[in-house]
Amino acid sequence: MAVTAPHPPPPASTVPFHCSSPLFTRVRLAVTSDVPHIHKLIHQMAIYQRLTHLFSATESSLSLNLFSSPPFRSFTVFILEVSPIPFSENSPHNSNPNYTPVVRTLDSELPVDDPERENFKAEDENVVVAGFVLFFPNFPSLLGKPGFFVEAIAVRDCYRRKEDLGRILLLAVVNQAVKMDYCQVEWAVLDWDVNAIKFYEEMGAPILAEWRICIIICDALRVHKNAYES
Amino acid sequence: MAVTAPHPPPPASTVPFHCSSPLFTRVRLAVTSDVPHIHKLIHQMAIYQRLTHLFSATESSLSLNLFSSPPFRSFTVFILEVSPIPFSENSPHNSNPNYTPVVRTLDSELPVDDPERENFKAEDENVVVAGFVLFFPNFPSLLGKPGFFVEAIAVRDCYRRKEDLGRILLLAVVNQAVKMDYCQVEWAVLDWDVNAIKFYEEMGAPILAEWRICIIICDALRVHKNAYES
Repeated sequence: MAVTAPHPPPPASTVPFHCSSPLFTRVRLAVTSDVPHIHKLIHQMAIYQRLTHLFSATESSLSLNLFSSPPFRSFTVFILEVSPIPFSENSPHNSNPNYTPVVRTLDSELPVDDPERENFKAEDENVVVAGFVLFFPNFPSLLGKPGFFVEAIAVRDCYRRKEDLGRILLLAVVNQAVKMDYCQVEWAVLDWDVNAIKFYEEMGAPILAEWRICIIICDALRVHKNAYES
Repeated sequence: MAVTAPHPPPPASTVPFHCSSPLFTRVRLAVTSDVPHIHKLIHQMAIYQRLTHLFSATESSLSLNLFSSPPFRSFTVFILEVSPIPFSENSPHNSNPNYTPVVRTLDSELPVDDPERENFKAEDENVVVAGFVLFFPNFPSLLGKPGFFVEAIAVRDCYRRKEDLGRILLLAVVNQAVKMDYCQVEWAVLDWDVNAIKFYEEMGAPILAEWRICIIICDALRVHKNAYES
C-alpha cells in the first residue's frame, strides 16, 4: 500500500537516522520437516483465538493428514520465512515442481527482536519461520466453480505488527487461486478480532454479516448417529 | 426422534382414518447424469437464500468440477430420492464400490403433492429426486484432523415440511464422517433462517456466534493481485 507524501521531503542533511535493514521474505510449500513449526504455529493461533481448550492437533496427526495428497487439490500449507540476507538461489525449494517460492524484500525500520528465534529456525542458518497459511479447495455451489478456503493463517507475534507479512501470505493463496482459475478465496474471522477485520476489509474482503457457522464435533456425531439408528 | 406417548392409545374402533402411505427414501452418491437435477436444486437454494444475483453455476461447470476426484476425498454430492414403492434391489447404485445407498421408510400422513415431479423424475419411473447435499473435506487445524464441510444442502419445497428428509441427508454426511474417523461436520447458515437454525440446534449443532465469514471474489482477486504486484 503506497503512502502518499503530502509534504515535500526535508533537506537531506535533516533526514533522521534510522537503523534500517531490509527483511527478505519467502513463501514456499511446506514439507514434512516443517511439521514441528506448523504444530507450534497452530498452538500460538489457538492462544490468540482464545481456543486452547480445543487444541488437540499433534505432530503425528499433522504429518499423517497434511501431505497425503498433491498440493492445491487438498489440504495445503505455505510456510512464510524471513531472513536478514537474501535466500539462496540453490535452495531445494526452488526446484519444487508444484510451486515456485515467492521471494520479496521488505523495508524494515528496525531489526526484529525475535525471542523465539531458536524454536523457529529453518534449515538454513539465517532463515526463521515467521508464519503459515493452511488452505484447501472449497466449492461455492452458487458459482459452480472451486475456490480456496483459508482454514488458518498466522504470523508470529514479533512479526505481526508488520502487516505486510499477513498480506504476503494471503496474497500467495489469492495468486494461486487466480492461477488455477478458481472463483474466490474465503475464510472465517472472530467478530472481536477488530484488527484482523480491518486488515481484511482493507484488502477488499468485507465480512458477510448474515452468515453463521454451525458445527457438530465427532462425539456428538456418534451420539446422534446412535440415536437416529436405534 | 421417538415421540413419547403420555396417554394410553384410544380403543381401536375410535382411531381416526388417515390416508396414510409410506414414503421410501434413498441417499446415494451422485453420478454425472444427476447434473441437471443438481443444477436446478442449487438454483432453488439460491432463491430460498435470496442470493440469485450470485447464481452463475452452469451444468457444464458442475459436470467438469464435481466428478474429477474420488468421492469423499474432494467435492462430493449425495442425492436424496423418494418413491411410493420400495427401491429396486437390482439398482446399479447398489453396486457402487464407493458408497452403499442408505434406504429408509418414512410414515407419510398424506401423499405428497409434487408440482415439479416431471422436472425431477429419476431414471426409475416411480422415483423422484427430492434433495441433495454437497460436501468436501476440510481441516479444522486446532483438531489436526480432517472433517467435512457441508457447502450446500437442500430439500425441495414440497418435501421440506418433512424435516426428516433434511435430517436424513445431513446424517448421511455425519455417518460418512464417523466411518472415516473424521473429527467433525461443519456448515454455514443464514442468521435470518430461524427454521434452519432451530433444526440444526435440535440436532446438537449450535451456532458458533463469534465467527464471521470473509470472502474475496475472483475479479477482486485480480484487481488486488495487480495492485500488489505493480
